[in-house]
Amino acid sequence: MYTAKIKITLRKTILDPQGKTIEHSLISLGYKNISGTRIGKYIQFNIDANSKEEATVITEEACKKLLANPVMEDYEFEIFRSGE
Amino acid sequence: MYTAKIKITLRKTILDPQGKTIEHSLISLGYKNISGTRIGKYIQFNIDANSKEEATVITEEACKKLLANPVMEDYEFEIFRSGE
Repeated sequence: MYTAKIKITLRKTILDPQGKTIEHSLISLGYKNISGTRIGKYIQFNIDANSKEEATVITEEACKKLLANPVMEDYEFEIFRSGE
Repeated sequence: MYTAKIKITLRKTILDPQGKTIEHSLISLGYKNISGTRIGKYIQFNIDANSKEEATVITEEACKKLLANPVMEDYEFEIFRSGE
């Protein structure tokens, strides 16, 4: 059994108003040295695969076909071996 | 300059209908060996701190005070040194 941990973020060239809002809130709480806040999605699932390679292929396909919007979003993921 | 990468997820005991929906979509796309899908938020920001310890304290406080809901959500984060 493997676990995929996927981060999906808006591409750098795309404005992130939700990130800006959180950054303003942090600054008004007194954290004035914070910048470049970006918000994205985090998705985690278990994959019953025979190898890490197979789990990687499945995760890559899932990101491309369903989870990420290829025009607006970037994704990165890690695959971990999890307890049976 | 440091970069904080924060993952915020619903606690394990709390139902995640959005995760279930994505899991059903993945299964109907043919990925039948996927289970335990959970969705959360991913937040990233830069911190102009003097040390990794200071950046860690700021990130921890930001999670507790603003970013995560302590009743329903868990958070974990990593701090990386980023280019000046």
